[in-house]
Amino acid sequence: MKKQIIQILTAMIVSTFSIHAQETIFMPQYIKSPIIENDSIVTFSIIAPEASEVLLQGIGGEDIKLSETNGVRGDWSVSLPLSPDLYTYNFLIDGVRTLDPANCYTARDIASLFNIVILPGGISDYYMPHDVPHGTVSKIWYDSKLTNAPRRLTVYTPAGYESSPDKAYPVLYLLHGMGGDEDAWCELGRVSFILDNLIAEGKAVPMIVVMPNGNARMNGSPGTTGEGMYVPNSQFSVAPQQMFEHDFPEIVNFIDSTYRTIPDKENRAIAGLSMGGGHTWRIGLEYPELADYYGLFSAAVRWNGTGISEQNHALDEQIKASFSESPALYWIAIGKDDFLFGLNKEYRETLDRLSIPYEYHESAGGHSWKNWREYIVEFTQRIFKK
Amino acid sequence: MKKQIIQILTAMIVSTFSIHAQETIFMPQYIKSPIIENDSIVTFSIIAPEASEVLLQGIGGEDIKLSETNGVRGDWSVSLPLSPDLYTYNFLIDGVRTLDPANCYTARDIASLFNIVILPGGISDYYMPHDVPHGTVSKIWYDSKLTNAPRRLTVYTPAGYESSPDKAYPVLYLLHGMGGDEDAWCELGRVSFILDNLIAEGKAVPMIVVMPNGNARMNGSPGTTGEGMYVPNSQFSVAPQQMFEHDFPEIVNFIDSTYRTIPDKENRAIAGLSMGGGHTWRIGLEYPELADYYGLFSAAVRWNGTGISEQNHALDEQIKASFSESPALYWIAIGKDDFLFGLNKEYRETLDRLSIPYEYHESAGGHSWKNWREYIVEFTQRIFKK
Repeated sequence: MKKQIIQILTAMIVSTFSIHAQETIFMPQYIKSPIIENDSIVTFSIIAPEASEVLLQGIGGEDIKLSETNGVRGDWSVSLPLSPDLYTYNFLIDGVRTLDPANCYTARDIASLFNIVILPGGISDYYMPHDVPHGTVSKIWYDSKLTNAPRRLTVYTPAGYESSPDKAYPVLYLLHGMGGDEDAWCELGRVSFILDNLIAEGKAVPMIVVMPNGNARMNGSPGTTGEGMYVPNSQFSVAPQQMFEHDFPEIVNFIDSTYRTIPDKENRAIAGLSMGGGHTWRIGLEYPELADYYGLFSAAVRWNGTGISEQNHALDEQIKASFSESPALYWIAIGKDDFLFGLNKEYRETLDRLSIPYEYHESAGGHSWKNWREYIVEFTQRIFKK
Repeated sequence: MKKQIIQILTAMIVSTFSIHAQETIFMPQYIKSPIIENDSIVTFSIIAPEASEVLLQGIGGEDIKLSETNGVRGDWSVSLPLSPDLYTYNFLIDGVRTLDPANCYTARDIASLFNIVILPGGISDYYMPHDVPHGTVSKIWYDSKLTNAPRRLTVYTPAGYESSPDKAYPVLYLLHGMGGDEDAWCELGRVSFILDNLIAEGKAVPMIVVMPNGNARMNGSPGTTGEGMYVPNSQFSVAPQQMFEHDFPEIVNFIDSTYRTIPDKENRAIAGLSMGGGHTWRIGLEYPELADYYGLFSAAVRWNGTGISEQNHALDEQIKASFSESPALYWIAIGKDDFLFGLNKEYRETLDRLSIPYEYHESAGGHSWKNWREYIVEFTQRIFKK
């Protein structure tokens, strides 16, 4: 019986290949790449018979040369000791940016696709799929007054949401950075996996996570709206970003009317990275009654295009007024090498001067998803536990 | 003000490039590819300075050579007259399979990624995003008795579902082919766009579309389950496929208890392609009370590994018994060149011999998504209109 099935399948494959080339439905993989050994050594490989030079881009600061494995012409590889994390990479073959044809896992950032590989171990285990109950990830649209059009959201509801119709949940609003969109926190941030895993371990409470599109000139990620399948070739086209926060209360209203939320301040959190950290800051300033937990990750804490300075008395007063709501957690996180470190320092100094309490987490590294994934793992364990 | 923003952004970009290479967040695009002119000529381009040969794969039956545009070394392109459709393609540069680095739109089929480009016009307009109300697409999990584990579904709910809490909807169950998974009908089948557009034009009734994973040995698409981020290198690993249909009633129960469905036969449809067409056939045979509408697209209509023949009296009786439920539509569609054409002919002859009514749609071409997209556009306009 098994043999018979294989014969039929083989016949199907041969027929498929001979009759249609439009979609190579049953394409075989001839090599494996990347290969992870002992959770610590990663070998990246590609067959490029005519290439003079093959580089690996994205791992570390410099391009890394591949060499011909055991001297075999065209059989390129490089083995690297890497620490646990999610890495994005691509090859550069004689100057041509090429994805790893043996690796079907990718993430998109604006107009660029990268391969991804995850080394397990430590915090990185949270980025991996495991045999735990899984939440639902939805791409949903709300009617926005900001743009007078439907706008797209990614929404994570935790495992058990469908089977517990009487249960209501707290909500984390999670905002992306400049050039990102409503796909970023799931694609590069691995948020659905992180929450599945943290909730399964009892380290985070079951929560809904709402990931809006923070680009006021973009209603949904590329290829999902009437703008068609354009190439998002520049982040400038999506300015003015500063309008987004005015859309925020209607997002909260939509979520509270669509999902089983606990619709109060104690059960709302807002966090964001870079531009989204700036949005988080501005939302806390303008609508302090909405949320009790704030996460500013590598935040673009700007005011009228510049940093926060003590010259601005009116801003001081607004900051003080907003903090009179006494948020349960105001968590500022940034890497030592982040290009926004100075802006954040200036903001922290302002808070210090105004005697406003907050928590500060300083990590190594810069303005990177490595840090933002670590921050969201930490932040989601700190919220809704009062 | 605008100038100031650009200065800040420029500073950010420079900082980003110099400090981190891990994620090239603001990667510019230097060329456009593909470019569509007059909705009929498509130019595919790539810069490959050192290449000896660049081929385009996936458009038509043969690989197509690119040449150096205006004789400029390394500036490769080819212009092709194409009819409206969705095309999948990739480049082959000196033997290396390469995605188009200027095109961020891709679709995955098992372990392979392809670029996609859509030529508008005719039926192809339904595959494009337009300024119409959009449905929600969710990746959701149900607890399966078949595999004693959570299994993943893609669910489309039409625009208005969230804002019309008193409205209930009919449900189309849509099954993928061998090697595909619960992502296929949205990625390659463009189902969410097709339904958004047909419903906006009033040509299809608002409906829920449920896209299960039909591989009994796979609980979710690669990278979503405890199996980790493996490379799905063979469709053999996902057999035995024939078990899937036994999971079907519990999927229906889960959907009826989770979504606002009209939970009766008149408001259920089942359709599938290839293996999923075979599943559709078997589900109609075993659970004829479940659905009123059936779509068999290039269906693998097999019985115990072979075609339907008149030798099998017991099968004849089972077919007759199942059709005593008089489905409102039983629609068989296949291309003239499909390698499953013979099996379908045999099945049609069996139905004819048993005087069982059905509709038959024969198209040009073979076992391809071009046909399946056309079939689903047709089929969704035919259902739930009694």
